Amino acid sequence: MTRRHDAQKFTMEHLRAVAERVSNWGRWGPDDEIGTLNFIGPEQVLDAARMVRKGKAISLGLNFDRSGPQRGLWGNRFNPIHSMLATGTDAVAGNQDAGGLRYADDMVSMPLQCGTQWDALGHIFFDDKMWNGYDARLVDTNGAAKNGIEKVKHKMFGRGVLLDVARYLGVASLNDGDAVTCEDLDACAKSQGVEIRRGDFVIVRTGHMERCLAAGAWEGYAGGAAPGLAFETAEWIHRKEIAAICTDTWGCEVRPNETDDCTQPWHWVVIPKIGITMGEIFNLKELADDCEQDRVYEFLFTAPPLPITHAVGSPINPMAVK
Amino acid sequence: MTRRHDAQKFTMEHLRAVAERVSNWGRWGPDDEIGTLNFIGPEQVLDAARMVRKGKAISLGLNFDRSGPQRGLWGNRFNPIHSMLATGTDAVAGNQDAGGLRYADDMVSMPLQCGTQWDALGHIFFDDKMWNGYDARLVDTNGAAKNGIEKVKHKMFGRGVLLDVARYLGVASLNDGDAVTCEDLDACAKSQGVEIRRGDFVIVRTGHMERCLAAGAWEGYAGGAAPGLAFETAEWIHRKEIAAICTDTWGCEVRPNETDDCTQPWHWVVIPKIGITMGEIFNLKELADDCEQDRVYEFLFTAPPLPITHAVGSPINPMAVK
Amino acid sequence: MTRRHDAQKFTMEHLRAVAERVSNWGRWGPDDEIGTLNFIGPEQVLDAARMVRKGKAISLGLNFDRSGPQRGLWGNRFNPIHSMLATGTDAVAGNQDAGGLRYADDMVSMPLQCGTQWDALGHIFFDDKMWNGYDARLVDTNGAAKNGIEKVKHKMFGRGVLLDVARYLGVASLNDGDAVTCEDLDACAKSQGVEIRRGDFVIVRTGHMERCLAAGAWEGYAGGAAPGLAFETAEWIHRKEIAAICTDTWGCEVRPNETDDCTQPWHWVVIPKIGITMGEIFNLKELADDCEQDRVYEFLFTAPPLPITHAVGSPINPMAVK
Amino acid sequence: MTRRHDAQKFTMEHLRAVAERVSNWGRWGPDDEIGTLNFIGPEQVLDAARMVRKGKAISLGLNFDRSGPQRGLWGNRFNPIHSMLATGTDAVAGNQDAGGLRYADDMVSMPLQCGTQWDALGHIFFDDKMWNGYDARLVDTNGAAKNGIEKVKHKMFGRGVLLDVARYLGVASLNDGDAVTCEDLDACAKSQGVEIRRGDFVIVRTGHMERCLAAGAWEGYAGGAAPGLAFETAEWIHRKEIAAICTDTWGCEVRPNETDDCTQPWHWVVIPKIGITMGEIFNLKELADDCEQDRVYEFLFTAPPLPITHAVGSPINPMAVK
Repeated sequence: MTRRHDAQKFTMEHLRAVAERVSNWGRWGPDDEIGTLNFIGPEQVLDAARMVRKGKAISLGLNFDRSGPQRGLWGNRFNPIHSMLATGTDAVAGNQDAGGLRYADDMVSMPLQCGTQWDALGHIFFDDKMWNGYDARLVDTNGAAKNGIEKVKHKMFGRGVLLDVARYLGVASLNDGDAVTCEDLDACAKSQGVEIRRGDFVIVRTGHMERCLAAGAWEGYAGGAAPGLAFETAEWIHRKEIAAICTDTWGCEVRPNETDDCTQPWHWVVIPKIGITMGEIFNLKELADDCEQDRVYEFLFTAPPLPITHAVGSPINPMAVK
Repeated sequence: MTRRHDAQKFTMEHLRAVAERVSNWGRWGPDDEIGTLNFIGPEQVLDAARMVRKGKAISLGLNFDRSGPQRGLWGNRFNPIHSMLATGTDAVAGNQDAGGLRYADDMVSMPLQCGTQWDALGHIFFDDKMWNGYDARLVDTNGAAKNGIEKVKHKMFGRGVLLDVARYLGVASLNDGDAVTCEDLDACAKSQGVEIRRGDFVIVRTGHMERCLAAGAWEGYAGGAAPGLAFETAEWIHRKEIAAICTDTWGCEVRPNETDDCTQPWHWVVIPKIGITMGEIFNLKELADDCEQDRVYEFLFTAPPLPITHAVGSPINPMAVK
Repeated sequence: MTRRHDAQKFTMEHLRAVAERVSNWGRWGPDDEIGTLNFIGPEQVLDAARMVRKGKAISLGLNFDRSGPQRGLWGNRFNPIHSMLATGTDAVAGNQDAGGLRYADDMVSMPLQCGTQWDALGHIFFDDKMWNGYDARLVDTNGAAKNGIEKVKHKMFGRGVLLDVARYLGVASLNDGDAVTCEDLDACAKSQGVEIRRGDFVIVRTGHMERCLAAGAWEGYAGGAAPGLAFETAEWIHRKEIAAICTDTWGCEVRPNETDDCTQPWHWVVIPKIGITMGEIFNLKELADDCEQDRVYEFLFTAPPLPITHAVGSPINPMAVK
Repeated sequence: MTRRHDAQKFTMEHLRAVAERVSNWGRWGPDDEIGTLNFIGPEQVLDAARMVRKGKAISLGLNFDRSGPQRGLWGNRFNPIHSMLATGTDAVAGNQDAGGLRYADDMVSMPLQCGTQWDALGHIFFDDKMWNGYDARLVDTNGAAKNGIEKVKHKMFGRGVLLDVARYLGVASLNDGDAVTCEDLDACAKSQGVEIRRGDFVIVRTGHMERCLAAGAWEGYAGGAAPGLAFETAEWIHRKEIAAICTDTWGCEVRPNETDDCTQPWHWVVIPKIGITMGEIFNLKELADDCEQDRVYEFLFTAPPLPITHAVGSPINPMAVK
């Protein structure tokens, strides 16, 4: 049903042509740092609240711990390291009593994109530029002087729509290399009886994470082959004027790449050119089960990022409220 | 108007008597790990959605960076350390081109309670026990086997109420040592025309953070003297059956302590005995300004914690949506 | 030739009897925190210098990086995470020029025992005690109030002796489970024509690390099965009055354990009872090759620990100078 | 006696002329990554051993902990964060007994140059180049592909000489801004009756650290004003063909800068052009006292860096052995 990633490999010329077509640079002025989150206004926020019909909140966050998906395949990422700064064993040993309070305290060291997360607009570059045409060199070891995640700290609230492509296709999980096309997205929405509106948070379920969880092995989940959005969906995203796009995979787009000429071509275009914030590694099982049961695929969605100054991503605990 | 912390110092006998009176141990069964968040059910979630009337989302999160409030006064906490794993300068230098993608990536090392945050129920102990009677030694260097923050990952969504005590008292900020009493809370709510309901997220504004931000100096904010809730408000919290209590101070309760016999007496009782999750270091300026303007002090509130497995706290970016 | 770990499993009674026999508690007074490093005095330091005969310095340190031996098999350890705080790419981009200096800077997050390292005397407990009878609860989340690695910061200098057991046995590497006995150690020394003296740093080569490096796979190196010192060598170590004992394995002693009743029985006795500092994960190839060539198995040895206050271990870069 | 930093401000032309004169680029071939450590050969190692005359080892390392000198004045550096991965309180609580071993374990997060340390040759750039003419962009977020600290892991062993300038000048500490000149160094050596030889580790004492320790306040120690080497000593260092230069200050050279046109001009020249490894934040009190007493200012010196792959610095615990 879905297209294979290698059905027809495209060239950089095609990539660049699409990038030009879908570019939103300047659309919200030269100083914009939030991109398609501009599609969310008071109306969309009110609309989101109207989605709450039965009073059920569902977390889409994978727990953050050392059993996370990072397996050293990609970049310098690692699983979260949680360590304790004070413990109950210290407390019961009496070691804290001079201070008059018995407590535990802790810290974490983690890549901001090691688990369920937002990619900030400063995360991916197109040639020497990032979203809205800012120079990529504005992101240095001091962080992202432009397009940092802290710029969107009040924006991650709106109407959410689940497109359960796996269920639509009648499979537990798409296969690695399966490319979800624009037609797939439209047909899935239609079959679910839900419409995509401007300013929506669109969440696509491939079943990939559940496949790994069921197998008890992440293997190539983070950085390897995966089902995911076809490159062409960049045009769908642009046309639909959605606020954000999220999936239950590591990198949203299909892997292996649909081109031999670069890596993650969809990323090249979608973040820097469309200016859309991307959600990855979403845990969709509970939401998908609920939607299958009540046949309602829309909901209030919120996933406030940690406003880490100048960060290019943030771990999140997204919530769908129905 | 407010009471001084040292108006009348109390003894450990008093503390223990109050602890006994307000204890919710066993109320939701012997296996409960979420305490007063049990007060939130479908009705409260629906009620929260009804609070959205004008479509405005406001972040209550302080940015996380090295200029945060930690000044080494208390425990082993430090300000967040954000560092880069990949940069735009690397990208533009061509150093990533062999990989076919230009990107930035980053990591953070941070105490989970160094900024805007939830205290988990495993954070504070009463003698050798934590919430619901669990042994404090269940919190060791492997984290909190019980009462970890991940247990509440789907619960931080409900109706929020701001009690702007500073504005009610006509001051920019309460003074350090000013104790907000039950009477203050009730009178403030009354003057604002808002009622406190079961399952609410109650947010108390003292003006402390704004005072520090205006002065450009945190000084004793984290761990020193502060305005805050009087010890007696433990009974108010218990009686009102609220879901969570949050403030714009480091530790919610008034400092110096209202007793000479222990440190942070309110913490002793409120977290382990009532079982209430506590929000601290909230940035309330924008919300308070908005509430002052429209005279509406209730809103949808959400602050999903990062579900760090077995953690005793979580940094958050709380959202009030009106 | 060597004995198998399971030749004859021993009981906790035997372990406790040996522990009693080899105990050095009180030998250097009730306040001692350096144990067998007391065997090093001016004479030993002078002797060490005399070992330098050809002017060749050899590092015994494995590089610290993400390809290190930690594979999540044991405890909470992980491989070092090195990240940059400033880079040459930033510099060349001109991003540092306002500061008037072009530079790179970096940080590391690492378990102190993730690679080549010293175990401090506070690392292992015997029942509720550590070296010299100190209460184990003196090691809490604030670190080791007694027996911390900083206490030995000026002591890691002396005469070193390599006992190349693998070469003596004519194998590239001992097998996992091979137990090196007292007799093996004595015979090896004799065959090498070297004597063990009081205050020596004795370094035992099993070939285990070289086997892993040759295979390009650490597998169970850290925490799994390994060749190593037989439990009985605790008596040899005590009798010889050596200053420290080091190997090219993760944990010095043979694994699986020689008893079914506890884990790492040799550790139980050697660190807390004898009070000997232990060196692990030493990279011995270059030294072993050199010793084989010149037939000289003694040398100046130095491995200054990082004096991290209250730490129970330290990464090191040991040096043998011949 | 010493010259003030502002006696005569120099220009970039002067800096560049000196840089040209002292450049060692190419001296040890185009592939060299260790610079002046090439001056250490077997003869120097043997000579070092001969310096051991009374059998006394002295640590020159400042302990690494949260009370270290970093006060946020410079760059992204912070004091070491030591946290525990296992504790004696856990052990005594019985929480480890299922594993059969009672132990403590720990980790550290630290900038590699936050305390007593080596600067690697990849730490400082001259325009777009580093030591030996390598492109500065070889140091990116993956670390230093050239001139990393791991390249010198076997070289930090040789003859050390203390030039106790403070004692020579009859002061407890030089003042901030006091510039130690070539003449000062020569006169100090002469007064101490010690000669500087090719391949030496030269250690200059200003008294700055002891001043801070005595005051109990680091203040501007890390990144602020300081006594230190005059810019002109670059020529002395080049002429003497020493292996490394170390001081008891944060940055070796006098601060404020002797020029208005750049920051730390001596660093510009000394590391990238001469190719000398620099030791900073040395704790010299005990060594200085010993040398004053026995009038012997030469010794065996060793300070093995942690071979952190591609790092631009390393924390160390230097040892002087007399």
